[in-house]
Amino acid sequence: MSNRQKRFFLQEDEIPRQWYNIQADMVTKPLPPLHPGTHQPLKAEDLYPIFAKELCHQEMDQEHAWIDIPDEVRDMYKYYRSTPLVRAYGLEAALGTPAHIYFKNESVSPVGSHKLNSALAQAYYCKQEGITNVTTETGAGQWGAALSYAAKVFGLEAAVYQVKISYEQKPYRRSIMQTYGAQVTASPSMSTRAGKDVLTVDPNNQGSLGTAISEAVELAMTTPNCKYVLGSVLNHVALHQTIIGLEAEKQMAMAGEYPDMVIACFGGGSNFGGVAFPFMRHKIKDGKQTRFIAAEPSSCPKLTRGVFQYDFGDLSGLTPLLPMYTLGHNFMPANIHAGGLRYHGAGMIISQLLKDGYMEAVDIPQSETFKAGLLFAKSEGIIPAPESSHAIAATIREALKCKETGEEKVILFNLSGHGLIDMTAYDQYLAGSLTDIEVTDEEVARNVAQLDKII
Amino acid sequence: MSNRQKRFFLQEDEIPRQWYNIQADMVTKPLPPLHPGTHQPLKAEDLYPIFAKELCHQEMDQEHAWIDIPDEVRDMYKYYRSTPLVRAYGLEAALGTPAHIYFKNESVSPVGSHKLNSALAQAYYCKQEGITNVTTETGAGQWGAALSYAAKVFGLEAAVYQVKISYEQKPYRRSIMQTYGAQVTASPSMSTRAGKDVLTVDPNNQGSLGTAISEAVELAMTTPNCKYVLGSVLNHVALHQTIIGLEAEKQMAMAGEYPDMVIACFGGGSNFGGVAFPFMRHKIKDGKQTRFIAAEPSSCPKLTRGVFQYDFGDLSGLTPLLPMYTLGHNFMPANIHAGGLRYHGAGMIISQLLKDGYMEAVDIPQSETFKAGLLFAKSEGIIPAPESSHAIAATIREALKCKETGEEKVILFNLSGHGLIDMTAYDQYLAGSLTDIEVTDEEVARNVAQLDKII
Repeated sequence: MSNRQKRFFLQEDEIPRQWYNIQADMVTKPLPPLHPGTHQPLKAEDLYPIFAKELCHQEMDQEHAWIDIPDEVRDMYKYYRSTPLVRAYGLEAALGTPAHIYFKNESVSPVGSHKLNSALAQAYYCKQEGITNVTTETGAGQWGAALSYAAKVFGLEAAVYQVKISYEQKPYRRSIMQTYGAQVTASPSMSTRAGKDVLTVDPNNQGSLGTAISEAVELAMTTPNCKYVLGSVLNHVALHQTIIGLEAEKQMAMAGEYPDMVIACFGGGSNFGGVAFPFMRHKIKDGKQTRFIAAEPSSCPKLTRGVFQYDFGDLSGLTPLLPMYTLGHNFMPANIHAGGLRYHGAGMIISQLLKDGYMEAVDIPQSETFKAGLLFAKSEGIIPAPESSHAIAATIREALKCKETGEEKVILFNLSGHGLIDMTAYDQYLAGSLTDIEVTDEEVARNVAQLDKII
Repeated sequence: MSNRQKRFFLQEDEIPRQWYNIQADMVTKPLPPLHPGTHQPLKAEDLYPIFAKELCHQEMDQEHAWIDIPDEVRDMYKYYRSTPLVRAYGLEAALGTPAHIYFKNESVSPVGSHKLNSALAQAYYCKQEGITNVTTETGAGQWGAALSYAAKVFGLEAAVYQVKISYEQKPYRRSIMQTYGAQVTASPSMSTRAGKDVLTVDPNNQGSLGTAISEAVELAMTTPNCKYVLGSVLNHVALHQTIIGLEAEKQMAMAGEYPDMVIACFGGGSNFGGVAFPFMRHKIKDGKQTRFIAAEPSSCPKLTRGVFQYDFGDLSGLTPLLPMYTLGHNFMPANIHAGGLRYHGAGMIISQLLKDGYMEAVDIPQSETFKAGLLFAKSEGIIPAPESSHAIAATIREALKCKETGEEKVILFNLSGHGLIDMTAYDQYLAGSLTDIEVTDEEVARNVAQLDKII
């Protein structure tokens, strides 16, 4: 047997005890979120009606670079963490690249993705504050599954509004949520005013994340002891996800390497921020020349082709206004299989970091992501989530550049989840029936033009 | 954070370098398999037309207790091994039991089950002997998925005959096999004489494992450089699976414990033998008083209600005659969701060990297994395969006995796989539409009576 090590684990007492809050170290702080009606900057207190208080403070915290992970959350992290850092020898050989490719395997979480890192934290804080019920929205269901399990762990009731078309087309993930004991409702539903408003106009409406958010927020605001929780975009979600990069930093050291590039797929920013921010602090503070690459779908290119402007987080304009790279909150992403990347805007921290040149972004056509996912499955064994395949595709592009130049660059990417519930997508790719969706310049221009009317 | 350790891993250089062959240590050796036509004892050479030669010798080896794991196989084991040994604190708390419950988590293999441990070994030996193509049958698809990936790893072409009803009802696992590059054919098919014989009589035949075995064996015997591989029942398969128990033994030592009971679900015996045999050697050699419990479905109770007799491995009577606990090779198990346990007979090593009192067996109704699986999902996070839930149910029975007596017994069970591709089964259970299937004494008696005519 070769002596080369394939996977790197931390002992349980080496699992990080704090999350990293990059806001405290940013040279240019993010602009404040604004009240959607008054356009006044929000304070943490303004968010109390919706979120657990501790999460509101984490959201706004620009002072403390390190936030203690509660013991109860660390105890649950031990159920699946540390996740392995894996040297992708199989993929390297398949590509014939001199690059050293590593991936952090978040797909080993019991719910199949990194989403659990924040779900456990959010459920814990809710429990601490005497909250009994949590509610959220989900599309394909990765976040909904994570929240359902986390709620069960901390003895909370969970109500999940799942976009109706996913509820019907991806029954496996709905079943997973129900297996953990969550109440799952197809959205739009008749259980909220927001849902009724949609259904009375359009009884066959198939739902959208925007509508599902409105339903979940409404339920939280009209139910005693019930709070809303969110799986991406917000600062506190990315904060919790930094456990990924903090572990990876220690594990890369075990491997005796430091990444030249850190790559992750990009939807709202939670898995990208999670793996990138801990490494980025050395770029901000010590000038370390690491490249950070966010891989987004060509069909939803907010980072590569959007504008940096205040915009709403949801379709209906109920949320605070956030300073973000956006395609406009009424941009309707094509129905690609990477459902977790179908979002019009980027989180405000990442938007500022991109604007300031600390990171870069690439957009990747759907067919290239599936080609990459298939090569990864055959060479590393793990069938990746369609979202994660964007990171793999970006990694392959860089690894092939190294093949041309002969450079032994060190690439780290985050495998945010597995694709076992997404096999119909692979079926379509193998059958040659997947198409690439192009977004025209006119469509982008038309959408972002509407933002000028907001503020 | 509590200091108690949740999961135990081995370093890669601590992964066992040899498999354990219990045949060498058995006081009463298994009776020989017999030629189906002549009824003469078989030699290893007699199996050469079907299996790779090395596997034929492993099958018959009653001399060597330890078989070296080839370096190339160990290199691939490092892709997912060691699998974690997990202390089930969550399940213990949910039960309120003083028992210490551990499980070996084989569900973290990239294909989702323990099956890969033998698939990699079999594919490797085929490659070594110049074989270019392998073929097998699969029901629900756990074995087929493992073999498809293992074939890809070692550069072999894989042809899998999947029982037609599963091919149509469980498309996700078919897609997984195709993603790894395997050719998957619904059985019965028109590509073999065996398939044609069935289809010309019954064009709507939904297939069976027996028919699929016949098709795969026929393909192997009529194709140059093509061998047949099997995922359970045979001695060499259980041999490869002993990596599970050998790792677990080291990991239990890290936890400072030794099991009073070792529990696994039982189909043909590969995961049971895999986890149990390494511990059982201390019972055989040193008289260590560990209980070994095989958990089988009430609807397919070969160990608890079958007879010990020579029988065929397949429905059509093409395979060698094996000395086994059996319900008769024409026993038609009910269509329970634990497809991997729907087999009429037990491997010959296990049959002899059960006869000699080294192990015991329990049969468990389907509804009890799903109740156990649901409790496990909620308390440990992992949604178990319906097969594995039999082991969980048996574990819960024993843990509740400990609760009554106050005994702190140490229980180790094998979590053979996850249930993410089996969510329709959970759906049915949650909807209350799962039924328990009883096998009558008359049915068992009628089936086993036919065995007297064979030999």
